[in-house]
Amino acid sequence: MLKFVVSKSEIEKKISIASSSIGSRTVDPILQCLLFKPVSGHINIHATDLQTSVVSQVRIGEYEGNEAFAVDAELIDDIVRNLSEDEVIFEYANGKLLVKSGKAKYNISTVSDVERFPIIDVDEGGVKFSVDTSILEEMLDRVSFCASSESAMRALNGVYWEVHGGFLRLVASDGYRLALAEQKLEIENEFDFIIGLKSVKELEKLLSSTTEPTINIIYDHSIISFNAGDVTMTVRTVEETFPDYKRVLPKAFKTRVVLNIDDFSEALKRVMIISKRGNEKVQLKITDDVMELSSQSPDFGEAVESIPITKDGEDLIVNFNPKFLNEAVKHIDEKELEFNFVDNISPLQVNPRNVEGYMYIVLPVRA
Amino acid sequence: MLKFVVSKSEIEKKISIASSSIGSRTVDPILQCLLFKPVSGHINIHATDLQTSVVSQVRIGEYEGNEAFAVDAELIDDIVRNLSEDEVIFEYANGKLLVKSGKAKYNISTVSDVERFPIIDVDEGGVKFSVDTSILEEMLDRVSFCASSESAMRALNGVYWEVHGGFLRLVASDGYRLALAEQKLEIENEFDFIIGLKSVKELEKLLSSTTEPTINIIYDHSIISFNAGDVTMTVRTVEETFPDYKRVLPKAFKTRVVLNIDDFSEALKRVMIISKRGNEKVQLKITDDVMELSSQSPDFGEAVESIPITKDGEDLIVNFNPKFLNEAVKHIDEKELEFNFVDNISPLQVNPRNVEGYMYIVLPVRA
Repeated sequence: MLKFVVSKSEIEKKISIASSSIGSRTVDPILQCLLFKPVSGHINIHATDLQTSVVSQVRIGEYEGNEAFAVDAELIDDIVRNLSEDEVIFEYANGKLLVKSGKAKYNISTVSDVERFPIIDVDEGGVKFSVDTSILEEMLDRVSFCASSESAMRALNGVYWEVHGGFLRLVASDGYRLALAEQKLEIENEFDFIIGLKSVKELEKLLSSTTEPTINIIYDHSIISFNAGDVTMTVRTVEETFPDYKRVLPKAFKTRVVLNIDDFSEALKRVMIISKRGNEKVQLKITDDVMELSSQSPDFGEAVESIPITKDGEDLIVNFNPKFLNEAVKHIDEKELEFNFVDNISPLQVNPRNVEGYMYIVLPVRA
Repeated sequence: MLKFVVSKSEIEKKISIASSSIGSRTVDPILQCLLFKPVSGHINIHATDLQTSVVSQVRIGEYEGNEAFAVDAELIDDIVRNLSEDEVIFEYANGKLLVKSGKAKYNISTVSDVERFPIIDVDEGGVKFSVDTSILEEMLDRVSFCASSESAMRALNGVYWEVHGGFLRLVASDGYRLALAEQKLEIENEFDFIIGLKSVKELEKLLSSTTEPTINIIYDHSIISFNAGDVTMTVRTVEETFPDYKRVLPKAFKTRVVLNIDDFSEALKRVMIISKRGNEKVQLKITDDVMELSSQSPDFGEAVESIPITKDGEDLIVNFNPKFLNEAVKHIDEKELEFNFVDNISPLQVNPRNVEGYMYIVLPVRA
């Protein structure tokens, strides 16, 4: 038996946070469930896809009984979200869960073998460090879009975390482009790990939904936990070696362009109307104070646009996949960008002007 | 040759209105195009799926040349929508269309055999009548959701228009339910026709986007035109006979219930959480001043909810497909509803309380 009374807004929020870690193609029905478990004065809601596990702690007044139960996550989410009164009574007994609120009454089935519910725990003795929530959120936003979701190289299907020399560095790459963000950290240990893309997306959701200013992280080799107040996410790392990304960072630039990010992304958006109907290619033609963007489609025609720039170094004509440029500028929240070119076959480095700690690398395509 | 200058907002709006009548599964490439045709001082944009045709008249200062051209609708819509300057220059010559605005320049392909573009015209000598835009919009909203989209009876795949005895009556049914809306009209002629569901949806878009207070309609047997200022939609009717709907309208009610529409739709929404995971059935149990709504699912459990009602006549237990009740209440914008029952196997009539001219009929399901 387990009985508790909770406010709709509290339980709705906590169910929603936990539910985000449930996989969409789950075979085992218990993995479609949320586990409600009373623990020393409160109720924990657990969810997992075996790779990531989320525990959200529900604030309640008091509870009777101490039996855990597991119930279909979508069903309980649907029920709670649609209630109209603020007070909700949960009453679990004999395998049935009664949910009552106002005149609404649900008598729903629960999973019988609740002790089978898998729980991933981190060793509290692992390395502890903290990052500002907003900083971690920005760093992940700037790199995670470059991660592959289906590379044969499993190491690329996630974000690489490198704690080294007093810095946290996040790197992601799909083999055609790479993004890198770094931040000073108060930590002496040195270690690195890869978190899979699905776990990264859940972590991003957690970061955007929490009001906690700091994320407390525990590293214990193959398991990492992220705590934000009453929500804890625990992740199994991807046990692979990340490629040596430092080798692809370009050096000795021959052309440096400074441009306004809005000018560039507006112009790019317009030439992409043709390129997406054609060969998925945009040509950048860089002369003294103008960058001309153009694209062709054999069936639909062509587009040309130009924007003002400031240039140091040589003139250059170079082609890119416009999607890779577009995604890059979408994730930079600055006014001015630097484009650093070596030549028309070497990787281009894009970074916000006068901002340290972030760079984006992208390979040109053949004309 | 054809050249004109137009404001972005004007051309964007007119392209968008015309584009709505383009079919999604068109085989003939010319049907994916918009035809731009100069006509006595302005440019008309035509689009058609052979069933419905839309002509929107573009307001421009002046134009040079008088050649028509046809261009891919999605492409030109995409181009115009993404321009950032207000002035747009269209310049058609030698099969190529040049679109220029600010520093953006597109040189795009057009269709060669432009005279093949199909135009549906109504005979201006047909029967003319007018309906207030807002009234016609409400009438269509109240009935069109009942039309079938895939019935073997082609007459049901649309909305039936009956002009009779000084009234316009719209009726739609999918065989399980029926909606009827009527309105007094200043007209002596009597005639009826069916408009297919896709054309009805385009007409609904036209009604919601126009600022014209009145729709001018011309009926010419197999062709109907709807004019709203600078946009005209012309439709081929469905040449079938609509079933005699008057036979299914229930009479001699034994139970009449008055209820608050928000109470009912909130309660229904909550029991549907179970019914949609079960047998798609909701039971209404009507006693003196309470209606109890309940549903069961063998896998997930059950839901019960009750709402206050005012009842005349006999107690009743009756089952419905909850989706059919839910869709009905969503299309009624009134505070109180009347449910008029004969018994638990005859059609239920739902209508707004104290509002004339609208009713919804739905068949119960077996317990």
